Amino acid sequence: MEIIRTVAEMRAWRKLAGKLAFVPTMGNLHEGHLALVTAARGQADKVAVSIFVNRLQFGQGEDFDAYPRTFDADCDKLRAAGVDALFFPNERELYPRVKQDFNVEPPHIQDELCGAFRPGHFRGVATVVTKLFNIVQPDVACFGKKDFQQLHVIKAMVDDLNSPIEILPVDTGRAEDGLALSSRNGYLCAEERAEAPRLYRNLCALRDSLLAGSHDYAGLEAAASADLAAAGWVVDYVEVRQADTLEIAHAGEKRLVVLAAARLGRTRLIDNIEVFR
Amino acid sequence: MEIIRTVAEMRAWRKLAGKLAFVPTMGNLHEGHLALVTAARGQADKVAVSIFVNRLQFGQGEDFDAYPRTFDADCDKLRAAGVDALFFPNERELYPRVKQDFNVEPPHIQDELCGAFRPGHFRGVATVVTKLFNIVQPDVACFGKKDFQQLHVIKAMVDDLNSPIEILPVDTGRAEDGLALSSRNGYLCAEERAEAPRLYRNLCALRDSLLAGSHDYAGLEAAASADLAAAGWVVDYVEVRQADTLEIAHAGEKRLVVLAAARLGRTRLIDNIEVFR
Repeated sequence: MEIIRTVAEMRAWRKLAGKLAFVPTMGNLHEGHLALVTAARGQADKVAVSIFVNRLQFGQGEDFDAYPRTFDADCDKLRAAGVDALFFPNERELYPRVKQDFNVEPPHIQDELCGAFRPGHFRGVATVVTKLFNIVQPDVACFGKKDFQQLHVIKAMVDDLNSPIEILPVDTGRAEDGLALSSRNGYLCAEERAEAPRLYRNLCALRDSLLAGSHDYAGLEAAASADLAAAGWVVDYVEVRQADTLEIAHAGEKRLVVLAAARLGRTRLIDNIEVFR
Repeated sequence: MEIIRTVAEMRAWRKLAGKLAFVPTMGNLHEGHLALVTAARGQADKVAVSIFVNRLQFGQGEDFDAYPRTFDADCDKLRAAGVDALFFPNERELYPRVKQDFNVEPPHIQDELCGAFRPGHFRGVATVVTKLFNIVQPDVACFGKKDFQQLHVIKAMVDDLNSPIEILPVDTGRAEDGLALSSRNGYLCAEERAEAPRLYRNLCALRDSLLAGSHDYAGLEAAASADLAAAGWVVDYVEVRQADTLEIAHAGEKRLVVLAAARLGRTRLIDNIEVFR
């Protein structure tokens, strides 16, 4: 596996790569990321992964500095997974003037759901992904459904800005008890880790109610939030939305997604589940 | 010359084009545009031109509807100039949802100079150029120095968002009396056309003063504005700026550009001149 640290070297490598699939990450890789790599390998001649903890998408008081950097372990996993190139730029390489002057500005959805709690987050995501796409120039890029709103923003951006890149969504990897795999799970103490699957259990219960025919989204959202709050979580949101647009879901909607974000101690966890009925 | 009206056909054509140079235009082509085509031909195997009058970069009350559409004459000129492909999408092809959701947001320079008089103009330019770049995927794109602030915004955008495209600036084409070639010159009546070169004459006079050693930018700007106003122009601005950054120029600056925008009757004309001393 080639480890590439500069934009110029990445471009040179790309020219010879043939059909290329790309998996952008922030490192601290787990099985969920490796499922993205596996999906990528099925799509192209070569697979490139990037590791870049993007300051632009972290808000004030968020965990940018604490975000786990585990480069050597990440490399081992990517090599074992058959990745061809790892793009690992430092901040100066991607933000040479420190400040990013031009930003890709998403529409109102960036201020809803997670965006309501993380101002500027999706602008930062859209902007760095645009930069990475321009540098790596993949034919296909893989994004996990675990970050469902992010996936939606990227798909909509690629479509709206005519990027010549196919976005491949990949199912969420889960622990045996249902907890969605996430780098932030590493922040949980043992007691919190045992409690954490409650988030997914609530989403499953909500899905079952929807499949049983309920249209009382507000009531279901409130019940899930109350269950989490009673167990000590601080709930940012539990919301039923339209799966394809992430717009507010109306009664009778057939393609839904239930999204939730809640904090357990100092760790913010997110999860979601699609419901087609 | 291939005339291509859809994004899908443009992408298919591009795949076989080899090294590609691109000239985005709004049509109503004149010698200035053809100089861009000539510059493009020197850079690549193939040359693509686009004609698209981009609603997004026109403000309320501006001349979007009146902007001259001269497709057949444009095609003749492009064929004669040896252009390989003309991308000529309609609005629905570039804005299928009518509203553009994702925008490329330039930094503060978008609100200065012409941007102060055309709110949202450079956002519209940056966004449509991003879309066109993503569709045409050129290796090189040519922009005229006549629209100096636009050229600056595009160069800065490409740099800041890591677009894999080289931007080639091309000198302003001028009539014999010095008037910068512009589609909007067609709006001028005979009397206005005779008056119009005063804009460039003032820029030349200002340049000569700078070359003679003046550092009194404010005084020179005021004198040029007064001369134009006395002849019946409504002056938007005459400004001395740093040539490379478009930031405010300080005394002693070596690389300058003088930019002006002024209205003659209902026609808004812009021009500029670089001054290296």
